[in-house]
Amino acid sequence: MIRGFEELESLVRKGARKRLVLAMAEEEDGLKAALAAAAQGVVELVLVGNPKAVREVAAHEGLELGSFRLVPAEGEKECAARAVELLRAGEAEVLMKGKTATSALMKAVLDSTGGLKGPGLLSHLTLIQSAAYPKLLFMSDPGLNIAPDISAKAAIIENAVRAVRKLGLYKPKVAVVAAVEKVNPGAMPATVDAAALSKMAERGQIADCLVDGPLALDCALSDRACAVKGVGGEVAGDADILLMPDIEAANIFYKTVAFFCDARMA
Amino acid sequence: MIRGFEELESLVRKGARKRLVLAMAEEEDGLKAALAAAAQGVVELVLVGNPKAVREVAAHEGLELGSFRLVPAEGEKECAARAVELLRAGEAEVLMKGKTATSALMKAVLDSTGGLKGPGLLSHLTLIQSAAYPKLLFMSDPGLNIAPDISAKAAIIENAVRAVRKLGLYKPKVAVVAAVEKVNPGAMPATVDAAALSKMAERGQIADCLVDGPLALDCALSDRACAVKGVGGEVAGDADILLMPDIEAANIFYKTVAFFCDARMA
Repeated sequence: MIRGFEELESLVRKGARKRLVLAMAEEEDGLKAALAAAAQGVVELVLVGNPKAVREVAAHEGLELGSFRLVPAEGEKECAARAVELLRAGEAEVLMKGKTATSALMKAVLDSTGGLKGPGLLSHLTLIQSAAYPKLLFMSDPGLNIAPDISAKAAIIENAVRAVRKLGLYKPKVAVVAAVEKVNPGAMPATVDAAALSKMAERGQIADCLVDGPLALDCALSDRACAVKGVGGEVAGDADILLMPDIEAANIFYKTVAFFCDARMA
Repeated sequence: MIRGFEELESLVRKGARKRLVLAMAEEEDGLKAALAAAAQGVVELVLVGNPKAVREVAAHEGLELGSFRLVPAEGEKECAARAVELLRAGEAEVLMKGKTATSALMKAVLDSTGGLKGPGLLSHLTLIQSAAYPKLLFMSDPGLNIAPDISAKAAIIENAVRAVRKLGLYKPKVAVVAAVEKVNPGAMPATVDAAALSKMAERGQIADCLVDGPLALDCALSDRACAVKGVGGEVAGDADILLMPDIEAANIFYKTVAFFCDARMA
């Protein structure tokens, strides 16, 4: 089990070096991070953007562009399309956002002809390392699926389970988060979804993980809260993956941790 | 403007001393906190619960019960009802939860004959003091209104505005939180609610506050995020009150701050 970003990094180092494409590279934070990863040998770099602007940003930040491939493109739409093309062509494996808005990049990724989308549902998974929790915590979906129904939530769980398996975490514990632990069919549809997902995992309809919910956040993460509330089970208090009820809850959770808390996120 | 719990405490000290009733007092954390507030002269205390159990908890914790009134009642239902009765009768002004579940206490509060509910909507307001934010931050509603419609959200804002006014905060800035800043009528009803609430405040339908939304959490609280995203206005980056889209988002926000962050909450 991976307990922090350091272990994650060493795992990445062990694998084959990935080629990373930075879409619209003329943005200082993104460029700095991508160059740092390349300098550490974690990735090879392909930069997409206005060559003059990229070189200006690099010069201004005192960054060495080295011999990285620089694919010329203008504006966020073209940069996004060009970056996605490189991934389709197998010339890169990892997509990173530079100055493009997330929406522009996602439009290119999801484009029905030139995009990357396979038959499955695409979802957004984030990870958090915090002193408040003894292991890495994954959470979905703060950025793509707005109001997933039960089937879409099952697909989001499956995507997350596949992703954490690549990090060596088998049979992860998935907490389906709501505001309470009781199923409230009349007023709280999120609790009904959670119950259905728990049973689907029990019946093998969602594989390779343990799923339990509804769990409020405290019972998902804290044994003490479970003891006080009398909530049991293998997942409660020990979640690896949090499935949030909808994009608002997920997005607010993510930004709360980023804004208020001393945590590392990706 | 109140910037922290210390100022809040000194404000409470200046007012007339309130009588606080602790429902089902045989619970150590609640009893300890209530006795500490009484010892500091902030409140007078009325304890409701099983007298023997209350005395045992006090003895076990080394707490002096002093001469506080102890109203006998058995079990959470009776304790809740008795505590609410004392408030109705004007023998106490503040209700505090001891060993009763929130649901049991709220049932007594909302009881149509013996409860405390007036004609308006009842909502739950919390406050947060964090080093990450330069002033007290209020948030509603993590515990009572499950999926408020636009009218209910307007009433929740009004309740919050009335409460913060009692703390000397006039014309508070209310951020209506969503996952994004753009209004998305097809897919994100929370953004439409936010737009409607903003306009209602502009038209004077919600008084004594500034309302803006939709704002993602980062733009509600951070000037820097607003600058990056190009979001303006008087509320953005400087919110006093966060209105959350529904109980899941609010509850998860609240518990995230409590679990991951070094913050003081009430």
